[in-house]
Amino acid sequence: MALDCTYRLRIPHRVGQLATVAGRIAEHDGVIGDITTVNVGRHEALREITVEVRDKAHANELAAGLEALPEVSVIWFHDRAFMAHDDGKLEVVGRRPVRSIQDVRDVYTPGVARVSQAIHDHPELARRFTMIGRSVAIVTNGTRVLGLGDIGPVAAMPVMEGKALFYSQLVGVSAVPILVDTKDVDEFVETVVRIAPGFGGIHLEDISAPACFEIERRLIERLPQPVMHDDVHGTAVVTFSAAIAACRHVGKRLDQAVVGQIGLGAAGYGIATLIHDAGVHRVLASDPNPDAQAQAAARGIEIHDLETVMREADVVVATSGRAGLIDPALVQPGQVVLALTNPAPEIEPEAALAAGAAFAADGTSVNNVLGYPGIFKGALLAGASAINLEMKRAAAWALAGLTVESELVPDVLDPHVHDVVAQAVRDAAIDSGVAQLEATPEALAQSF
Amino acid sequence: MALDCTYRLRIPHRVGQLATVAGRIAEHDGVIGDITTVNVGRHEALREITVEVRDKAHANELAAGLEALPEVSVIWFHDRAFMAHDDGKLEVVGRRPVRSIQDVRDVYTPGVARVSQAIHDHPELARRFTMIGRSVAIVTNGTRVLGLGDIGPVAAMPVMEGKALFYSQLVGVSAVPILVDTKDVDEFVETVVRIAPGFGGIHLEDISAPACFEIERRLIERLPQPVMHDDVHGTAVVTFSAAIAACRHVGKRLDQAVVGQIGLGAAGYGIATLIHDAGVHRVLASDPNPDAQAQAAARGIEIHDLETVMREADVVVATSGRAGLIDPALVQPGQVVLALTNPAPEIEPEAALAAGAAFAADGTSVNNVLGYPGIFKGALLAGASAINLEMKRAAAWALAGLTVESELVPDVLDPHVHDVVAQAVRDAAIDSGVAQLEATPEALAQSF
Repeated sequence: MALDCTYRLRIPHRVGQLATVAGRIAEHDGVIGDITTVNVGRHEALREITVEVRDKAHANELAAGLEALPEVSVIWFHDRAFMAHDDGKLEVVGRRPVRSIQDVRDVYTPGVARVSQAIHDHPELARRFTMIGRSVAIVTNGTRVLGLGDIGPVAAMPVMEGKALFYSQLVGVSAVPILVDTKDVDEFVETVVRIAPGFGGIHLEDISAPACFEIERRLIERLPQPVMHDDVHGTAVVTFSAAIAACRHVGKRLDQAVVGQIGLGAAGYGIATLIHDAGVHRVLASDPNPDAQAQAAARGIEIHDLETVMREADVVVATSGRAGLIDPALVQPGQVVLALTNPAPEIEPEAALAAGAAFAADGTSVNNVLGYPGIFKGALLAGASAINLEMKRAAAWALAGLTVESELVPDVLDPHVHDVVAQAVRDAAIDSGVAQLEATPEALAQSF
Repeated sequence: MALDCTYRLRIPHRVGQLATVAGRIAEHDGVIGDITTVNVGRHEALREITVEVRDKAHANELAAGLEALPEVSVIWFHDRAFMAHDDGKLEVVGRRPVRSIQDVRDVYTPGVARVSQAIHDHPELARRFTMIGRSVAIVTNGTRVLGLGDIGPVAAMPVMEGKALFYSQLVGVSAVPILVDTKDVDEFVETVVRIAPGFGGIHLEDISAPACFEIERRLIERLPQPVMHDDVHGTAVVTFSAAIAACRHVGKRLDQAVVGQIGLGAAGYGIATLIHDAGVHRVLASDPNPDAQAQAAARGIEIHDLETVMREADVVVATSGRAGLIDPALVQPGQVVLALTNPAPEIEPEAALAAGAAFAADGTSVNNVLGYPGIFKGALLAGASAINLEMKRAAAWALAGLTVESELVPDVLDPHVHDVVAQAVRDAAIDSGVAQLEATPEALAQSF
């Protein structure tokens, strides 16, 4: 597993020294990333240089190589990921400080009793006077985490904290990681149902198929708030928007195209069904798993072998998890090919283009952080009871509309992007009838 | 239920005008709290005046009375508690902003995968590289909330957010409210056990007796992290420290005194058993409930009627929930009487002193916010597997040591107080053998 390692170096402050250091890093096969000047003295500079290395042994070898340069010393070097995770990535804080006894009386006893009593009398007030209306639980049992597989709930925590970080920074939603220590579907569902009242939405994450489908279906049935498995639907929304943008680049219209989906795991199933439900008449798919085939066929997807899908589809989306699966000989002239498996795609974009594709991309830019924050924020803004097809379609079109020429998706760190998605999802929730009024005038009168 | 109401007033900026307003508030039986000057112009001032009124009708009546003053206008008036609760009191935020693509690589893919893999290989690393080691779940089913009783989990949320607010501000612990929607002990325990891996400690809150005892006992048995029901143990620690301070004021030594506990609910049971276990030889108690009597007797508490307890105890602590329960005729000369039921005590301190008590206080200053933040922080600092007697005793003595002359408890908003408690609890955890090493050198080597 390649890693980004930061070296803090003391280097003579003279012309050519940084070039020498960069040259030594190249000799050791390191790829240089950010360079930050920490301090500049008369004779020396302190710099932090980030280098992508293969593994820890490679990092050590490079450190020795740098140390061997005359007048250069390595003060320390660390894997950046561990530095960024020290003490965890999230914290729970108050929205306003408690400074005085009056503040204590307002946020705690005796004032809090009036708020609790009002919510007891009018439960709909909870949305306004607690954090519930601005919060989401990110729930996982850690059975399918990134490329790591079933690593269990605790090892999945850094991923959940990462998701929550984006919720906070991009849309101001308070997301709480909830690690559920069971693989049993019944136990998982019961646990989530019992703790659900504390959260405005339930974001399911990194749960393996097929359990994830059953869990999501039952939670949607039983809970009054929106429930969404991000690996299925969030990924589908972002991929759908990328497919719209890709078609636009080559003058196609996605809604008139034949779409082929290669791989029907959680993500692939979500993509195929969303694209189909959103109005693409013909969606073909291939997958070796008969259960996955049957599940997709029941939703109107045509099941074929890989060769047929490649031959008949105008737009191909691959999420098979298998690097190099697509033989360039199968690519049709003018085809759009999105080979999204990370870190190595089903076919390199260059190879697909060389084989005649009109447009080709891999999964490096199709980041699902573009989807879930705005989707759940929009659902919370509307007080939606569900995240339905209309809301997902609105999110995908909003993303496609924000994508600038020559890109596949918009900038993931731009808060404006997420605002636009959230508003589109909110409006779609209202238009499709799943939004709820905030509180009755009678209830609000109690909280004067 | 009395309430603190803030009036924003436009008042002529002339000598005597505020006196007129204050006089009008007095005529309407309002008790004035904070007065804040919002803006001062040449002829007018904008002020916010907080007034304790009886209820909303009283607030309206006072508004009309103020409006009727010549040249005074009421711009708005609101219940301060609802203002302080608007949009909830808590939020979940990142510890560091995500600014660049390098940041995304560090906190999310691909960097996060290395941290997850390391935790999978060495689970003890979770304490350092996730928020788990700095977090507590505040778990309730809302069956016994403040003086409101069984109002259910959602209406209990503002109280849980209030508790969490103090965790954040006073000791930097991330506390997450978890509302468990069941009154069944088995279901409650199973739910908490399944979500426990995500939290460094389990703080139980506002669960009715006797279920709370069984729930706590079983969770302590099954979980590797500290579990504590605050209404039992946190309250006991703070009350114990108040009793130490009260004895000091009158030259008694608590450890040589006979202590009487009136009322054996969750709090009373916790106080009696902590004081007994901490070394007070004779603890007497009274309670009409035979089950509560039996439970306390099994822990070495002598059960008597109220009259006997009052006759024989040097120090009396009352948490009966019954205002006016103690007849002044029962008070013995030289007795210490802590009548803690809120808002109206078992006996008014003035009445107890008039009847011969050497020291008397009610529950207004004995705030359990003095206890739980430092107790859990100390337990987390030590990586403690439990919160044992030694840790609770250390917390109580630390609080008593911080109490200045003539006070019963230290200042609840002083972070130094909570630091001292946390350090005392941490040291006691280490000394009593329940602390855990942070991580093995081998595990730490993976996170270079």
